[in-house]
Amino acid sequence: MARRQWMFDTLRGVFEKHGFVHIQTPSFENLSTLTGKYGEEGDQLIFKILNNGDYLAKVDDVLLASKNSKALTAAISKKALRYDLTVPFARFVVMQRNELTFPFKRYQIQNVWRGDRPGKGRYQEFTQCDCDIIGTESTLAELELVQIFHEGLSALDVPGFRIALNDRRILQALSEASGVPASSFADWTVAVDKLDKVGLEGVAKEFEIRDIPASALGMIENLLGIRQAPDPQAALDKMAKLLGEQAAAREALTELEHLVRRAKFSGVPESHLHVDPLLARGLDYYTGAIFEVLVEDAPFGSICGGGRYADLTGIFGWKGVSGVGVSFGADRIEDVLNHVDGWPVLPNVGLDVMVAQMESGDVEAELTSAQACREAGLSSELYPDPAKLKKQFKYANDRGVRWVIVLGEDERASNVVSLKDMVGGHQDQLPLTEAIAKIQAS
Amino acid sequence: MARRQWMFDTLRGVFEKHGFVHIQTPSFENLSTLTGKYGEEGDQLIFKILNNGDYLAKVDDVLLASKNSKALTAAISKKALRYDLTVPFARFVVMQRNELTFPFKRYQIQNVWRGDRPGKGRYQEFTQCDCDIIGTESTLAELELVQIFHEGLSALDVPGFRIALNDRRILQALSEASGVPASSFADWTVAVDKLDKVGLEGVAKEFEIRDIPASALGMIENLLGIRQAPDPQAALDKMAKLLGEQAAAREALTELEHLVRRAKFSGVPESHLHVDPLLARGLDYYTGAIFEVLVEDAPFGSICGGGRYADLTGIFGWKGVSGVGVSFGADRIEDVLNHVDGWPVLPNVGLDVMVAQMESGDVEAELTSAQACREAGLSSELYPDPAKLKKQFKYANDRGVRWVIVLGEDERASNVVSLKDMVGGHQDQLPLTEAIAKIQAS
Repeated sequence: MARRQWMFDTLRGVFEKHGFVHIQTPSFENLSTLTGKYGEEGDQLIFKILNNGDYLAKVDDVLLASKNSKALTAAISKKALRYDLTVPFARFVVMQRNELTFPFKRYQIQNVWRGDRPGKGRYQEFTQCDCDIIGTESTLAELELVQIFHEGLSALDVPGFRIALNDRRILQALSEASGVPASSFADWTVAVDKLDKVGLEGVAKEFEIRDIPASALGMIENLLGIRQAPDPQAALDKMAKLLGEQAAAREALTELEHLVRRAKFSGVPESHLHVDPLLARGLDYYTGAIFEVLVEDAPFGSICGGGRYADLTGIFGWKGVSGVGVSFGADRIEDVLNHVDGWPVLPNVGLDVMVAQMESGDVEAELTSAQACREAGLSSELYPDPAKLKKQFKYANDRGVRWVIVLGEDERASNVVSLKDMVGGHQDQLPLTEAIAKIQAS
Repeated sequence: MARRQWMFDTLRGVFEKHGFVHIQTPSFENLSTLTGKYGEEGDQLIFKILNNGDYLAKVDDVLLASKNSKALTAAISKKALRYDLTVPFARFVVMQRNELTFPFKRYQIQNVWRGDRPGKGRYQEFTQCDCDIIGTESTLAELELVQIFHEGLSALDVPGFRIALNDRRILQALSEASGVPASSFADWTVAVDKLDKVGLEGVAKEFEIRDIPASALGMIENLLGIRQAPDPQAALDKMAKLLGEQAAAREALTELEHLVRRAKFSGVPESHLHVDPLLARGLDYYTGAIFEVLVEDAPFGSICGGGRYADLTGIFGWKGVSGVGVSFGADRIEDVLNHVDGWPVLPNVGLDVMVAQMESGDVEAELTSAQACREAGLSSELYPDPAKLKKQFKYANDRGVRWVIVLGEDERASNVVSLKDMVGGHQDQLPLTEAIAKIQAS
């Protein structure tokens, strides 16, 4: 827990330094708010809350007898647990739009829930740390979020991370240039998204299932080649040749060039930047730049993701507000730091001092000693029972407490305490104030 | 959010100073773990999660046709959202018992969910801050938690709080002494618990409904008198006279006397302590001392609660482990501090500096300025668009940003920046490093 706290505090520090404002939203959203935002598979994975009380009372008998789970759900569940932080954020922005100052920059560190089968890097409940900038089309917003990836992950000392960059408009042009009908673009991205899991043959199968011409595979092979380009600019140059003259895609490419150049200018090492023409991102709401952060040798996919959405608030009735956001996957970052043993040594959040309780001792004097330690800024406790000293020392040892104060009859008579150093093993008699000074100096 | 963060950090500081260890548990528990722990009304208020997938497939047709919501729930819902932090903690302790050091002291700051009708001081999702000490029968554990009430609420500067104290064993003896059959004790506490809401006549009605002899009302009147006792010891003396010679109750009374005396000795002012013979606490698992913290003039009940449970882990198969715990209701404390305008002035977590973006200006120089501010420890951002300066100044003003840096053509030519003080209104030209120093000194 101390490590997670440190991770959140570190990211919070980076976000606030860039002027992001902290918000939280409730765990529950209306089920209808969430449905249809994450694709069909996503809808299946949303955790729905059963209505309270006699939830069947008003359900239609025919519906009930149909035994159709999907159809019944809407009748017996109004609320659901949030699936990500982006859709609740969009709802929040629309509801609060008269109170907010735009462009609005917020960060949010909260749990999300997904009904995935648990596995390596997959949890049913996990924490996302999101930054979004909404109400501007400026590509400096993308730049700021790439900086935040870099500064956040560097501050956490995540080893060997690379920020993958691409743009949905470029993907669209590439798919069209390879003969994929515009109507099949979404299917094409789903297939491309699976490439790293299923390989080129797998993608070929996906194309077949989804009625995408097999001739379009040649482009995927070309793009696989570009992935290996020695640096971002080389990748961009090769992509430019494949794109043709499609205006939106040319503009996207120029923006990506600027983003890479300015990120480098702002101190992001080129080796952390990877232009990946096969980065697709599953979620439908992205319309421009897309990001993912990967770690070499990690036993799972990305640790962060994000992108530009031209119209996320449109689904809640406020059209044409562009934004861009990123999300840090705290639990996967935690897994990476565990995997490489990469946590810093954190100050001891255990106990500094234990005061032993003596059989037929002076409990009030012992309470006073513990209190004096706390008033001096140390964490301390009085052992709650007058148990055998051996047992009390074992407890101190098990909890990793270094200092134990003992107030026996002799000590009380001479107005001192015994201070036992559980690490060094020796024990001194000295006045309480000196004992506290000694502990503070240790 | 900054205020909530400060509240949690403050309580965390107090808990850690007393040697409590931070844990978290998942939001979901098995529904069967939670059912039957919070009384019948509590069971109704637990939020149940609908099973994922085709949850009706295996449901018995007869059960479905019965339209019995309660009976169907177990068939279509395996998981539920935690209702408090105590039961999940008990489950955690039983599961981890071989890894933990006892007595085990933990704190936990997490949300809980209850299907209450929302209202003043009642939320469907709220945050509890719990401290528990488990594995000791020592009354010093009660003392430490009373100290934590006092230190935590004093650190938050909650005005006019009083810690109400009582003991379930005393309640039991008082009910028996007034002629309530032992089998009606639970009903009696439910009725007494409603006293502050429904008055003495309301309690009389409750007694009638629950078959409790009307003669038992005399005791309630006596106890109402004791509530007004001038100090805790006076209340305890009067209670002693009503108790008779019942051994468990006499012991409880002696322990309460010790608790009050030691709390005063440890620095809790007597005016913060209130022995209340009518404090009952709804939850069934309390068996000894019980606590509640109330605030004068608050528009709702208690802001904190707690008590001793002789056998909370028994329901999970590990019998005879005694513990005591308290819970701070963060949302109600927040309401109180809002109500009395009692929040401290917190350091600005907004934005220290905004760098304006000039039309046909030097974006990279502007980026560098914002970055230099951050490197000097200030929070800063570059306005994302080269909008009219008037608009940018309005944005800075709306966000409460005091300092704006402008890098016009003249400034760039002379290697300075313009620093505008949005509070004072004046503007200086000076080198960037001096501008940063000036902001830091402000």
